[in-house]
Amino acid sequence: MSVELLAVVGLPEIGAGDDLGGLIADRAAPLRPGDVLVVAQKVVSKAEGRLRRLAEVTVTERARELAGRLQADPRMVQVVLDESVRVIRDDRVLIVETRHGYICANAGVDRSNVPGDGTVCLLPDDCDRSAAQLRDRIAAASGVAVGVIVSDTFGRPWRMGLCNVALGIAGMPSAVDYRGQADDFGMPLHATVVAVADEIAAASGLIMGKTSRIPAVVVRGLALEGRGGAGRDLVRPSSLDLFR
Amino acid sequence: MSVELLAVVGLPEIGAGDDLGGLIADRAAPLRPGDVLVVAQKVVSKAEGRLRRLAEVTVTERARELAGRLQADPRMVQVVLDESVRVIRDDRVLIVETRHGYICANAGVDRSNVPGDGTVCLLPDDCDRSAAQLRDRIAAASGVAVGVIVSDTFGRPWRMGLCNVALGIAGMPSAVDYRGQADDFGMPLHATVVAVADEIAAASGLIMGKTSRIPAVVVRGLALEGRGGAGRDLVRPSSLDLFR
Repeated sequence: MSVELLAVVGLPEIGAGDDLGGLIADRAAPLRPGDVLVVAQKVVSKAEGRLRRLAEVTVTERARELAGRLQADPRMVQVVLDESVRVIRDDRVLIVETRHGYICANAGVDRSNVPGDGTVCLLPDDCDRSAAQLRDRIAAASGVAVGVIVSDTFGRPWRMGLCNVALGIAGMPSAVDYRGQADDFGMPLHATVVAVADEIAAASGLIMGKTSRIPAVVVRGLALEGRGGAGRDLVRPSSLDLFR
Repeated sequence: MSVELLAVVGLPEIGAGDDLGGLIADRAAPLRPGDVLVVAQKVVSKAEGRLRRLAEVTVTERARELAGRLQADPRMVQVVLDESVRVIRDDRVLIVETRHGYICANAGVDRSNVPGDGTVCLLPDDCDRSAAQLRDRIAAASGVAVGVIVSDTFGRPWRMGLCNVALGIAGMPSAVDYRGQADDFGMPLHATVVAVADEIAAASGLIMGKTSRIPAVVVRGLALEGRGGAGRDLVRPSSLDLFR
């Protein structure tokens, strides 16, 4: 068994309203049934116009206070608060729960690889919807219904460094559930639900890098069963989270 | 750019003292310079004899009390405590800090895929040393000095499902540091250190599955720079951890 990770190269700079799915389909051809396409959140957000100009942000007192403590730009902090439902930590960086339920630094708001001084990029409004729309568009353009993951790079507690994770998912499973299956000695496996979409997203990070202008990766050779996965499946409800 | 994940197939059941590196080198041939070999912790532990028979465990009062609350086998709880320096959570599962500094359920102690009723498998004593020994043995057997990752499947806070992570690393970097590099618009990238070894481990999880007897995966086509990485680099020191 083997799996291939293939860079989608030659994408132009993406702007609001661009047909990202069509642009990817053209450059990823020929796609095959069973392929999973991982697309970086940044280009999805750009295509969806999920940008804010810091000059147009009205800073609240709370953002000003937090920014002073964190030595950050108060306008940036305000944008982060606007994208958040709750601040989890504000010691050294702003770790928040976003409106989607993701827990991450700065609500995924990011200045890097965004054209125009003073513009920041937000996460898509609904990453599962973004993934589904990309999937539809790619199917229309290529004739192939691939799985789609919208991915971003998040930090983790307990471990150093960032990893790509799956924020939005369409046309594929989010996880593989081994519970109840037997191990190689016939004993039942316990508590083994593998976040396969996060593993695929992490794998795509090996190709995407941060500076090499490869915002889309084709993952080929997976034998995934099921199509009904969603990025929200991988967000641990706070009732099941021992650390929230 | 492309990366391949190749299953190493045909490994026999591994027992204490087996030449795991040699067995893998034979079946992964021909290896190439730049390849990374990801090996499941379970077979590494088996080769190193890191097993305990529950019948020989002396249960302390603390283990008995915890086991009662968690409805778990007191002997299993005792083994977990023996491998741990600290219990982080004992609400529903036992999440501990292991002697290595890993934070995970049950200290990585596991009954699945272990032959012999009542035997459990422990993490290697020093996963970086295990990786280095495997690397040396594979180099001797194959003539190729590959990177090696010893990987296990850990849960994460905030996100559902498990992902493979890199516990031991040899002959390759643990992370790629993009700080100070410019983004595609010439602006400096902030706070971007990617845990490349964890991304590689997660990718290998796509091949390993849990029941398919593929405990080793070759990752080919990465262009990694540096050889001095260690699994301990990816363990976040508690002073830098906002969640410990």
